[in-house]
Amino acid sequence: MSDFNLKAATQEYATRLGDDAVVLGHRLSEWTSNGPFLEEDIALSNVALDYIGRARMYYTYAAELAGNGKTEDDFAYTRDMREYRNLLIHELPRGDFAYTMVRQLLVDVFNTYYLPELAKSADSTLAGIAQKAIKETRYHLRRSHEWTLRLGDGTEASHQRMQRALESLWGYTHELFDADPLELQLADAGIGVHNAALRPTWLAQVSAILTEATLTVPKDDWAVRGGRVGYHTENLGHLLNDMQFLHRAYPGCQW
Amino acid sequence: MSDFNLKAATQEYATRLGDDAVVLGHRLSEWTSNGPFLEEDIALSNVALDYIGRARMYYTYAAELAGNGKTEDDFAYTRDMREYRNLLIHELPRGDFAYTMVRQLLVDVFNTYYLPELAKSADSTLAGIAQKAIKETRYHLRRSHEWTLRLGDGTEASHQRMQRALESLWGYTHELFDADPLELQLADAGIGVHNAALRPTWLAQVSAILTEATLTVPKDDWAVRGGRVGYHTENLGHLLNDMQFLHRAYPGCQW
Repeated sequence: MSDFNLKAATQEYATRLGDDAVVLGHRLSEWTSNGPFLEEDIALSNVALDYIGRARMYYTYAAELAGNGKTEDDFAYTRDMREYRNLLIHELPRGDFAYTMVRQLLVDVFNTYYLPELAKSADSTLAGIAQKAIKETRYHLRRSHEWTLRLGDGTEASHQRMQRALESLWGYTHELFDADPLELQLADAGIGVHNAALRPTWLAQVSAILTEATLTVPKDDWAVRGGRVGYHTENLGHLLNDMQFLHRAYPGCQW
Repeated sequence: MSDFNLKAATQEYATRLGDDAVVLGHRLSEWTSNGPFLEEDIALSNVALDYIGRARMYYTYAAELAGNGKTEDDFAYTRDMREYRNLLIHELPRGDFAYTMVRQLLVDVFNTYYLPELAKSADSTLAGIAQKAIKETRYHLRRSHEWTLRLGDGTEASHQRMQRALESLWGYTHELFDADPLELQLADAGIGVHNAALRPTWLAQVSAILTEATLTVPKDDWAVRGGRVGYHTENLGHLLNDMQFLHRAYPGCQW
């Protein structure tokens, strides 16, 4: 670990986790006023808020470690697409309700195993954020699990939509279990998570839920990667246009 | 005309016409790489470029009249939604190909009568811009006319899409013939156009084309207005997010 700067690495790691959270939170917020019915609209908006709250905590910590006077807003609103480090699955368009729910299921199960590991982090701030997020994720997974059963084992049309969403998303799940040297070193240092090790458990639980929902687990015959090095799908740029417009047009504005 | 500042009014008028052009040009540019086939893709992109070229001329003139060092880019990229003064029909989403073509037909016929009037303007700059635009519009109308016949009098599905587009757009055509005191005074001064007077001719030609295309001229039972005072549909904000992002993120950037 001679030339490994732990503080800089932790800052980068917190930024990555913040990016994951803010991007998925923004996608979920797009359902606000567009949900299939009122209760679901509010529920989705609440999940979106959980993610945005999580992003704020990660970014605030990253800003603190950077120690250059930047704030959470600078991280969210003034970095361009190539500087974002979120995993690609979070930036894909919201799609239809089935698509949104399948993505939530895949991500919620992942978080169910990832967050408890992060909650054991030697970094008490990251551990604290994870601890709070675990409770939220329990609720998120209850919802996405229920919707997966209801729509997968629902009508012919809802089943088809769920299976189609699953096939479209599956290739983006592999990246959840990748780790570059930075994340590996942080995991070795007891700060990060050995995420590759989580895949068998994740796959077992996802498969069980999909099977119960009469859905077919897709083949692992394609994968798209690049989020952690700033190579994104075309969707992220459009998302950032929307999300950052106000701060770009009115720099430093306050409510 | 005692308290009427001709120069300021002309600047505002040029800005309005620039807004109409840039917004419709941007909408048309969204077809680039999304056209139904290659030739049509290129044709639509060319029409988009005509409008964007027109916007540049109007804005450059407005900037010259403002005389405060602002450029065409300031007009296009640093004004927010409420400062835009385009007529609403130009900002509506591109919709499907039928929708885009119906809008073009309605706007092209309008320009067929509006631009020759503006070409007689006592303001030689505006007259010159209009003169150039007349030729473009002749080509635009040939295209939108042909597509209206082909799709209106085409298959059951294409006919339905055209009629649906027509019904959605019709209520936005009334604003084309509105004039506020500023435009009326400019028309009286021989600079602007008495646009209300153009409606009977516009309606006659549009009706003739629609009838030939086996489409039904909609009823005049609703109208939406507000573009000239800055009251826009929700669509303009999203359009400006996309169009202005680069200049907002990198102020004053040059190619």
